[in-house]
Amino acid sequence: MIDFKLISQSGAARAGVFDTLHGQIETPVFMPVGTLATVKALSPEELKAAGAQIILGNTYHLYLRPGCDIVGRFAGLHRFMHWDRPILTDSGGFQVFSLAKLRKLTEAGYAFQSHIDGSRHMLSPEKSIEVQICLNSDIIMCLDQCLEHPASHEQAVAALELTTRWAARCKTFWREQTECRNSLFGIVQGGMFADLRQRSAEAIAEIGFPGYAIGGLSVGEPKDLMMEMAAHTLPLLPADRPRYIMGVGTPEDLVELVALGADMFDCVMPTRNARNGQMFTDRGTINICNARFRDDEGPVDPSCDCYTCRHYSLAYLRHLYTAREILAYRLNSIHNVHYYVNLVNSMREAILAGTFDQFRKAFYTKREG
Amino acid sequence: MIDFKLISQSGAARAGVFDTLHGQIETPVFMPVGTLATVKALSPEELKAAGAQIILGNTYHLYLRPGCDIVGRFAGLHRFMHWDRPILTDSGGFQVFSLAKLRKLTEAGYAFQSHIDGSRHMLSPEKSIEVQICLNSDIIMCLDQCLEHPASHEQAVAALELTTRWAARCKTFWREQTECRNSLFGIVQGGMFADLRQRSAEAIAEIGFPGYAIGGLSVGEPKDLMMEMAAHTLPLLPADRPRYIMGVGTPEDLVELVALGADMFDCVMPTRNARNGQMFTDRGTINICNARFRDDEGPVDPSCDCYTCRHYSLAYLRHLYTAREILAYRLNSIHNVHYYVNLVNSMREAILAGTFDQFRKAFYTKREG
Ligand SMILES: [Zn+2]
Ligand SMILES: [Zn+2]
Repeated sequence: MIDFKLISQSGAARAGVFDTLHGQIETPVFMPVGTLATVKALSPEELKAAGAQIILGNTYHLYLRPGCDIVGRFAGLHRFMHWDRPILTDSGGFQVFSLAKLRKLTEAGYAFQSHIDGSRHMLSPEKSIEVQICLNSDIIMCLDQCLEHPASHEQAVAALELTTRWAARCKTFWREQTECRNSLFGIVQGGMFADLRQRSAEAIAEIGFPGYAIGGLSVGEPKDLMMEMAAHTLPLLPADRPRYIMGVGTPEDLVELVALGADMFDCVMPTRNARNGQMFTDRGTINICNARFRDDEGPVDPSCDCYTCRHYSLAYLRHLYTAREILAYRLNSIHNVHYYVNLVNSMREAILAGTFDQFRKAFYTKREG
Repeated sequence: MIDFKLISQSGAARAGVFDTLHGQIETPVFMPVGTLATVKALSPEELKAAGAQIILGNTYHLYLRPGCDIVGRFAGLHRFMHWDRPILTDSGGFQVFSLAKLRKLTEAGYAFQSHIDGSRHMLSPEKSIEVQICLNSDIIMCLDQCLEHPASHEQAVAALELTTRWAARCKTFWREQTECRNSLFGIVQGGMFADLRQRSAEAIAEIGFPGYAIGGLSVGEPKDLMMEMAAHTLPLLPADRPRYIMGVGTPEDLVELVALGADMFDCVMPTRNARNGQMFTDRGTINICNARFRDDEGPVDPSCDCYTCRHYSLAYLRHLYTAREILAYRLNSIHNVHYYVNLVNSMREAILAGTFDQFRKAFYTKREG
């Protein structure tokens, strides 16, 4: 089981540390998303240079391509993709829910067809854990039932109850298979209903996991509602375990969620937006295509010390991007991942220094300036 | 003017060295192609790690995008693209010939429309030199007239005569504008006619340049004919100047052309083929998509010490490529550029060691093995 140590707190914001099979993780932490055994456009060395401590892999995608037989030959994702730091894998449930064809949900699990070739598969709680073990994931997620948004209270009840039963099956299977070498996180659902979030948090905590995640946020609901659900749910999770908000969010979201006591984040925004020419900076987001950068000799962000900002101008990045050069996606992604990772790492430093409130104020001041 | 020193010879094969504004170049040398101020998918650091001494930029493309006003603000390509080693630029003539719309050839130059936006431009010998000076190219090429293949003797005569007159104009303009700081290379044309290759070589040598290129090869003619033209033309070029074969070729071509006394090469094959999944190895070319690599834990080439071969398996590269991940194009390109650069660098070492004949034999033996 994860031995999570809380090192410092500042209000609800917390700095902690825990060990995995592939090294220690300092929280709060941002995890870049490496869907198909690669964080899109980046090398492992570039991820390390950005300060990434851990990355996320998508079980659904990796199960379909290249498949467990291949990754298993490499004893897991780490050697396969040349990444020797920790990896967290999701359960595959969200992608079955959002990508797969003809999915059918039963007590047993998800029957579905591959979005790539239509082949038929069954993702049960046990199968999800089995695949994640084969990937040699450091942090394994329980299979949960995702909900459409908006969902009725009745639908949300049914989903959280199934998620709870599946969580118990996941834990049983995980204990049998791993002797708890890797860690297993439970996931809280409950839709946008405060009473159900509480019911789910209590049920999942009752089963007991090395860490806890809040799922089903950032699925199309208004920002206020997302933050309200997170604010309501985070204090319900055991304080002595890491708390992970799945698939969220903007830089502002991360600052607010750390303030509320969240420890772990993943999001495709830094890499996806980079590929769309959107660059994150302390002063807000800029679009690299903007004509005003045509002859701008300065970097994306003068306060950034990433490889991209140290060596390339806005004019060059705009040129590469408008010419659709492959290097554009890499240089943009290097900066954005560096921005996200360092935003969260900086929050950790501020918590340790007892200056988190000032950090948060300065974060907004820079954006307004 | 370039001070080319011949250091060693082995038959007609030669090893030399010359200085540029951005450092020394050891020949024979392979120049990766960086069309739009980027060697596709690679960073400057990766090019250096592959051993690249000099890269090529395409004047036509850079003139249209980002344009001289932009690159001029950076005092040339080097700072713009973060590459501090030498750069050779072509004249733009070949791309006007092959890409531009509604081109019209007169004594003055090429009137053409951009293939991007249809805008109208005029590429004269003087304009080509002016653009290349603005790019701060270390080695500038004369504007020449390209020929369709096949071309008649009459067409080839007209093209070589115009190329000769343009070469004289290029030299005059270059001397006025640069005080010969950068180097200017003359280009020999003459189609597939031995008599015209001789006539062109003599006329261009008569004008006198710091280096000489053979243009108009690898334009669709049979391989035998290409090699015959090169073999015929190379000895006609001044022995005390570098000899550059433009736009050629396969690994076998490079070995044979070095044997014939060529010193410089550029070709898009290593990067273009990498993006098409074709990988060069000592044992010949392999397609990374091949099903037999599905679970192959070995590298592309066990004898290669490039970044890709040191850290990634065929199975992983196949996975990335079939999933169309951006990293695939980079990792494949790193290997292929490393292969080309090191093939030519190895030939240099063999010439210096007096073992070029053995090198050439071993090169073919490995492919047959
Ligand atoms: Zn940056
Ligand atoms: Zn290699």
